[in-house]
Amino acid sequence: MKRYKIIIEYLGTNFRGWQKQKNNRSIQETFEKAAKELLQEEVNSIVAGRTDAGVHASGQVIHIDIKKKINDSNLLMGLNFYLSKENYGTDVCVRAVKKVSKNFNARFSATKKHYQYKIFNSNFISPFYYSSSWWVRKKLDVDAMLRGSLELIGENDYSSFRAKGCQASSPIKSISKVDVKKKKDLIVIDFFAKSFLYNQVRIMVGTLKDVGIGYTKPLEIANILYKKNRKFAGVTAPAKGLTLKKVFYR
Amino acid sequence: MKRYKIIIEYLGTNFRGWQKQKNNRSIQETFEKAAKELLQEEVNSIVAGRTDAGVHASGQVIHIDIKKKINDSNLLMGLNFYLSKENYGTDVCVRAVKKVSKNFNARFSATKKHYQYKIFNSNFISPFYYSSSWWVRKKLDVDAMLRGSLELIGENDYSSFRAKGCQASSPIKSISKVDVKKKKDLIVIDFFAKSFLYNQVRIMVGTLKDVGIGYTKPLEIANILYKKNRKFAGVTAPAKGLTLKKVFYR
Repeated sequence: MKRYKIIIEYLGTNFRGWQKQKNNRSIQETFEKAAKELLQEEVNSIVAGRTDAGVHASGQVIHIDIKKKINDSNLLMGLNFYLSKENYGTDVCVRAVKKVSKNFNARFSATKKHYQYKIFNSNFISPFYYSSSWWVRKKLDVDAMLRGSLELIGENDYSSFRAKGCQASSPIKSISKVDVKKKKDLIVIDFFAKSFLYNQVRIMVGTLKDVGIGYTKPLEIANILYKKNRKFAGVTAPAKGLTLKKVFYR
Repeated sequence: MKRYKIIIEYLGTNFRGWQKQKNNRSIQETFEKAAKELLQEEVNSIVAGRTDAGVHASGQVIHIDIKKKINDSNLLMGLNFYLSKENYGTDVCVRAVKKVSKNFNARFSATKKHYQYKIFNSNFISPFYYSSSWWVRKKLDVDAMLRGSLELIGENDYSSFRAKGCQASSPIKSISKVDVKKKKDLIVIDFFAKSFLYNQVRIMVGTLKDVGIGYTKPLEIANILYKKNRKFAGVTAPAKGLTLKKVFYR
């Protein structure tokens, strides 16, 4: 068995998330089906971070162990061929393939993840951003959001930003960087951490949106963190605005 | 009757082009229907440049003459409300509205148009660019394309780049600027001219792609122009890679 690291890209719109499930289209099932057709063996993928229904990824990472001898380039081309053959090629593709040692694990070797959230802040929603952003009409104060976002950085108990059903053993996570930028009508928020709690990024974004409209003061974010209670944070921002941009490894 | 200049944005994917037609969804009909619902009067729109099936626009311009008294802001909001109500809001929206004098004509007052074409140049097609770019697998030489594109600038007889069915009275057009840029896997080609012949941009792109793969030498573009015959130019690049970015007025 040889292990391969695979970088995969998908538009989450027409998937019910990463994970295989009955009666719903998932990225995992779509990928493993294409891999099986190519390799003529069962393929189980281990993913860096499962994404929810509607969430996109431009740099998701998985690893697979396979018996068949095949070089990186042929595996890349073959996977994309079978993905596109099933008419799946329009919303999922493989970007890179690399043979790795058995020490590599897509999930456990990850040292950092970069998630990006997009808010379209205008009276109208541009059709070009409809399926990849959260449409917020009320004018947002981006400077206040940036100020507030700084309170989220560091090693903290993020219980206030943790959704029901989160299976993490501890609510303590470490956010190394947050950035808030505005480009015309688009507000782009970047989050970097080793890992996140369930829905943590989307709840942080919902809370920063409250800061943007002036409902919450920037420094109140520290207080919300301190409360360790989900009810003090903002809404869970919609999945479609979220993209897993990159997974970092040593 | 008051005249309004309206900037409109659309994803061309699910339209059979700008122009109203039987049994096919067009942007014109979609827009005029929303305008009629809002204003309770028949609305006829004059467009800066009709776009073909599949072509997108982020800055298309139209003008309409209406009886009903309404201010710019309410017209903008109202149009977007009725566009979204019909579930059209996901692929077309109005970006700006401005009352103008009767001297303004969206089509005849235009002094320049900016079209942009996107080629996704990679072994795989990113799902994020599937509906807005032409997927070309063969590695393209962008420097050669840029060199070749310079031959297209100026006032020329563009018969070689004119599709059958073109209704322009003259094949002479004046291109003021062409630019070819590469950003990772994306090649972005910008064209600026007062107006273009039917399919001219797409045929120029198909020809530049031949330059990119080395089939045509950059300086041969001058020769293709000189021949004044469609058969010497390249293929007509797919509609989905093309976007009308902006229409300029005095």
